[in-house]
Amino acid sequence: MTGVADRRARAEALVRLFAGAPLQRTTGMVLSYDAELRAVFDMPHNPAFEHALGDTHGGVIATLLDNAGWFTAAVKYDTWIATTDLHVRLLEPSRKEALRATGRLVRAGSSQAVCDMEVRSASGRLVATGTAAFTVTSVPCG
Amino acid sequence: MTGVADRRARAEALVRLFAGAPLQRTTGMVLSYDAELRAVFDMPHNPAFEHALGDTHGGVIATLLDNAGWFTAAVKYDTWIATTDLHVRLLEPSRKEALRATGRLVRAGSSQAVCDMEVRSASGRLVATGTAAFTVTSVPCG
Amino acid sequence: MTGVADRRARAEALVRLFAGAPLQRTTGMVLSYDAELRAVFDMPHNPAFEHALGDTHGGVIATLLDNAGWFTAAVKYDTWIATTDLHVRLLEPSRKEALRATGRLVRAGSSQAVCDMEVRSASGRLVATGTAAFTVTSVPCG
Amino acid sequence: MTGVADRRARAEALVRLFAGAPLQRTTGMVLSYDAELRAVFDMPHNPAFEHALGDTHGGVIATLLDNAGWFTAAVKYDTWIATTDLHVRLLEPSRKEALRATGRLVRAGSSQAVCDMEVRSASGRLVATGTAAFTVTSVPCG
Repeated sequence: MTGVADRRARAEALVRLFAGAPLQRTTGMVLSYDAELRAVFDMPHNPAFEHALGDTHGGVIATLLDNAGWFTAAVKYDTWIATTDLHVRLLEPSRKEALRATGRLVRAGSSQAVCDMEVRSASGRLVATGTAAFTVTSVPCG
Repeated sequence: MTGVADRRARAEALVRLFAGAPLQRTTGMVLSYDAELRAVFDMPHNPAFEHALGDTHGGVIATLLDNAGWFTAAVKYDTWIATTDLHVRLLEPSRKEALRATGRLVRAGSSQAVCDMEVRSASGRLVATGTAAFTVTSVPCG
Repeated sequence: MTGVADRRARAEALVRLFAGAPLQRTTGMVLSYDAELRAVFDMPHNPAFEHALGDTHGGVIATLLDNAGWFTAAVKYDTWIATTDLHVRLLEPSRKEALRATGRLVRAGSSQAVCDMEVRSASGRLVATGTAAFTVTSVPCG
Repeated sequence: MTGVADRRARAEALVRLFAGAPLQRTTGMVLSYDAELRAVFDMPHNPAFEHALGDTHGGVIATLLDNAGWFTAAVKYDTWIATTDLHVRLLEPSRKEALRATGRLVRAGSSQAVCDMEVRSASGRLVATGTAAFTVTSVPCG
């Protein structure tokens, strides 16, 4: 665990980390952190990720939720964390809107972290919610 | 619900449907059905979907599981189904291996279907398991 | 769906309903509603529900979470609802404390409702969180 | 982890452990192990656990699933395990039938175990399915 200034620096390092991820370039997702150090992922609508019926695939929404939880929890630790389970509830179709995912820390324990997350459309509709658990490894970051 | 021959024809129509999906072209996933009409998704390792630490992103695994469940359940219905929730357990890293997801029908009710799914690596390791529920709509297929 | 006054009356009817449930007498759980019509379940520590290692069984916590979600969602409907899935995260041991579960409505759709829930100990520790989905039946209440 | 004979002895110790649990006396659940060392829980219908609408409460089913998973996984370890999350899918009403829950080990890792579980009615109907994860503690058993 780290102090407030350290956590802000950690968030900035995580933003740089994600900017270098192949997944970032492939999907166009952009990571930022809000004032409470919750991870926020924005993704413009990307037709390359539509399913056969012509809307954003649920797997994209699962990816946004996983990311929002992981990067919200990762700020709290100086070692890497790994997602152990992810539960996604799809509430409404995306309707080809841009999407924003936000994470919220539920608990940061010594061996496990838990977050809940949501995805909203650009027009504000609640598209999906999720929860995830992360195991805390002993591998130091960077 | 449909008879055996009808379900086989439905599976073939679903294979064609997925082959036309933008997601298919973007990810390289390939759908087939086994003798028991369980959906099988194969995906070669694709570096474009690696996270910043250099392995396949969990969102890809979630997408494979969602697809394997959806296409396994969809065979049983003549109207469209929609994923309502997806639960993913990530058991081992992918280690850049090709992945295969398989669905298994747990229950096909009149208003809801449930599947469980798994993802194995090319070398046979159990990488992830999942379960999903699907709501049965009244919108006819095709 | 019903208006505000109707919903308060519905909550009162649900409190009476639960008071007559065999489960209520067996466990000692008590239902109330807060100002925002969220269901609150209180349960004194009951040694009859301890597991072999001497603390409150996780099944009791699952029951509290299910109840808190179900009674929070049920207020919004004039027909019965049924739990379709319940996801429980056990965060801390109960340590034989009295427990309080609270529900929060995430979405009340025409065919499905979703809630999230939490259980806190009398001393304020976050013992468990959960989410649940409920299918809306066409069977009128009372 | 232990050898086959050791695991059988461990199962017998766990049967004795559960037989002494207050929860056992309160609910009437009985634990046995099948030939593959999967935990099996039987519970006669018990009107004390009915909800207000007159059928077995979903919390009882969650308890059966949690138990079936925990006791199936616990056989594999010489230290205690703790449930971290439990996901329950309620597929059919119990209709006041006796219930049988069975666990199946999905993975027994060094730090986490995963099981899936099912509950069937005495007449063979699939009433519920579930999955659970268990963290492996360093506290030696008995």
